[in-house]
Amino acid sequence: MRGPGGARLRRIEVDLAERSYPVQIGVGTLDRIGPEVARRTRARLAVVVSVPGVARRYAGRLERSLRGAGLRTARLVVPDGDRSKSLAVVARLYERLVALGAERTSALVALGGGMVGDLAGFTAATFLRGIPFVQVPTTLLAMIDASVGGKVGVNLPQGKNLVGAFHQPRLVWIDVATLHTLPPRERAAGFAEMVKAAALWDAAFFARLERDAEALAALDAARLVPAIQRAVAIKAEIVARDEREGGLRMLLNLGHTLAHAVETLCGYRRVLHGEAVAMGMVYAARRSEELDLAPRGTAARVEALLDRFGLPTELPPFPREAYLAALRVDKKSQGGRIQYVVLRGIGRAQTLPLTAARILPPGRLGAPPRRRGRVG
Amino acid sequence: MRGPGGARLRRIEVDLAERSYPVQIGVGTLDRIGPEVARRTRARLAVVVSVPGVARRYAGRLERSLRGAGLRTARLVVPDGDRSKSLAVVARLYERLVALGAERTSALVALGGGMVGDLAGFTAATFLRGIPFVQVPTTLLAMIDASVGGKVGVNLPQGKNLVGAFHQPRLVWIDVATLHTLPPRERAAGFAEMVKAAALWDAAFFARLERDAEALAALDAARLVPAIQRAVAIKAEIVARDEREGGLRMLLNLGHTLAHAVETLCGYRRVLHGEAVAMGMVYAARRSEELDLAPRGTAARVEALLDRFGLPTELPPFPREAYLAALRVDKKSQGGRIQYVVLRGIGRAQTLPLTAARILPPGRLGAPPRRRGRVG
Repeated sequence: MRGPGGARLRRIEVDLAERSYPVQIGVGTLDRIGPEVARRTRARLAVVVSVPGVARRYAGRLERSLRGAGLRTARLVVPDGDRSKSLAVVARLYERLVALGAERTSALVALGGGMVGDLAGFTAATFLRGIPFVQVPTTLLAMIDASVGGKVGVNLPQGKNLVGAFHQPRLVWIDVATLHTLPPRERAAGFAEMVKAAALWDAAFFARLERDAEALAALDAARLVPAIQRAVAIKAEIVARDEREGGLRMLLNLGHTLAHAVETLCGYRRVLHGEAVAMGMVYAARRSEELDLAPRGTAARVEALLDRFGLPTELPPFPREAYLAALRVDKKSQGGRIQYVVLRGIGRAQTLPLTAARILPPGRLGAPPRRRGRVG
Repeated sequence: MRGPGGARLRRIEVDLAERSYPVQIGVGTLDRIGPEVARRTRARLAVVVSVPGVARRYAGRLERSLRGAGLRTARLVVPDGDRSKSLAVVARLYERLVALGAERTSALVALGGGMVGDLAGFTAATFLRGIPFVQVPTTLLAMIDASVGGKVGVNLPQGKNLVGAFHQPRLVWIDVATLHTLPPRERAAGFAEMVKAAALWDAAFFARLERDAEALAALDAARLVPAIQRAVAIKAEIVARDEREGGLRMLLNLGHTLAHAVETLCGYRRVLHGEAVAMGMVYAARRSEELDLAPRGTAARVEALLDRFGLPTELPPFPREAYLAALRVDKKSQGGRIQYVVLRGIGRAQTLPLTAARILPPGRLGAPPRRRGRVG
């Protein structure tokens, strides 16, 4: 399928009955979003939520396209960083929406990374009990991870994502060209979710990533667009089968149990989410081997691939007790057990109800973080 | 159906596919809630949210019953009054839930009136992206109105209920005996929602209320239990057909457009919600006659019945401009028009998209509030 600008547009339909929506992937497509937002939301007002750097680069083009389709636009810029993902910022967004005369049919458009999507999505989920929401992810992580699934939310001082909702977007619009302005470290972090999707679901895709890692890291569009498409499709397939996180969807938490602990311990700042997921995923793969669930060599392949994308693979050396305390506020815990995601091999995962102490037996921490060569 | 204590338990099933739940109505049934909460939520921890007066009278019995069914219990008491229905109080509840070790399967039990239900419900809807929720309404208003529909939320400084979610309870447990300790004014306010349900949906029920008003106001259980049951069933029927407020459910807003304006103008304090609804409903009935939608005499019947329950029937004399400003932030407005609910007669309602100015033409305000005899 070719759009009016001639650029190739790939489309994935996230199938959730009356809440189904399309994910459109293309290169240089930001100027063409307007008619699609108008058609999918029927909004008269579109409020773009973004952070300063992204807004400066892309909000003007986005808003021109929206206005060209007949929408009134407004822009709400929040400070960069995970600290904006807070109830205080949500309260300020509500205030601004009231002042703008936002109605039930007005649309909120998240332009930015995962933080912006989570924050704007939670605001959209709860303002007037829910208004239409559009995702325009500009980081690789958000393209792959945050744009499918409908999970939105904010942090509490006590932990990450402890408050939230499920709110499906009406449209996800991915313009891969926005990745070129992404700092290298954030770019790398996005590949963690791509590796995750492959590791838990699709051995052939994992092998493709092993073949193309350097080209992907260099943002070679011919390889990157189909790789993003496949990663999004894996997540869409899992979410469509399990919208509210009954079982299957838990597999998407591969690497996330320890990632959240790492983020809590680092104060959400010194580590990027994708980096934390990479660490947690390697740990989960090793633990899977130790528990005789995955064949020998599984963890080595996961580690080597992440390493080629320039991602860290060792947990930071906080004391074990600190990790255990962080694990114990995990929101997925039930009766003291955490549904921990383990690998049965490359391309196959399952959950296992484990106590925090069993996830993290004594003596597994303290290895000094290794430094390695990076790509991308 | 008779429960173990011998008291009659009436049950209405709110039919929402996988989110269906029962409303149980009885007299003196508070001590029997435990097993039902355990069965419906499978929680290990039940956190009771209440206000001081209600908690003092009923929380002990409720918690004993929960503990008898094997649940751990905790109690969070918030200050009385609509001011507690705020983001700040929600944030404090989140903090306490984290401190209590609440998990995704923990249940929040709202014990109190509509404010407690809305506040606890919104907290339950958003904590860990949604935890189980049980309603134990102790005001007539909450029994009839707030326990069915799944609407939960809090106020912003700019307006009532501007933030919220849809979150269905797992169980609604109505013990009519709790009404005997309700102050007479709040008791009266509850009948406004009963009259509303009858006026918009069921002419025979309206006639029954006209026959029994004084007995109902005196809380005669033989008449009150079936009347509550019918009012809840009407709402359940409407909500089951339209869970997310597409069309039919808007009829339940009869009287509410101006009620919200009255509450905003009075600062949510000097007027009870049911009183505001009574005023708004009489106004809507009169406006329906003026617009030649309802036969002459419709408004007089609505007014007379509300008056027998001791409810006010005239809007407070704020300037028209103040009302218009309050109407214009109505969250149901679309493109400057409000879906205003009008009567086509007793037992029949419809929505009409009207501007604020057309809902409230000049010269309709300023009649001095009349004082009349009260029952109850």
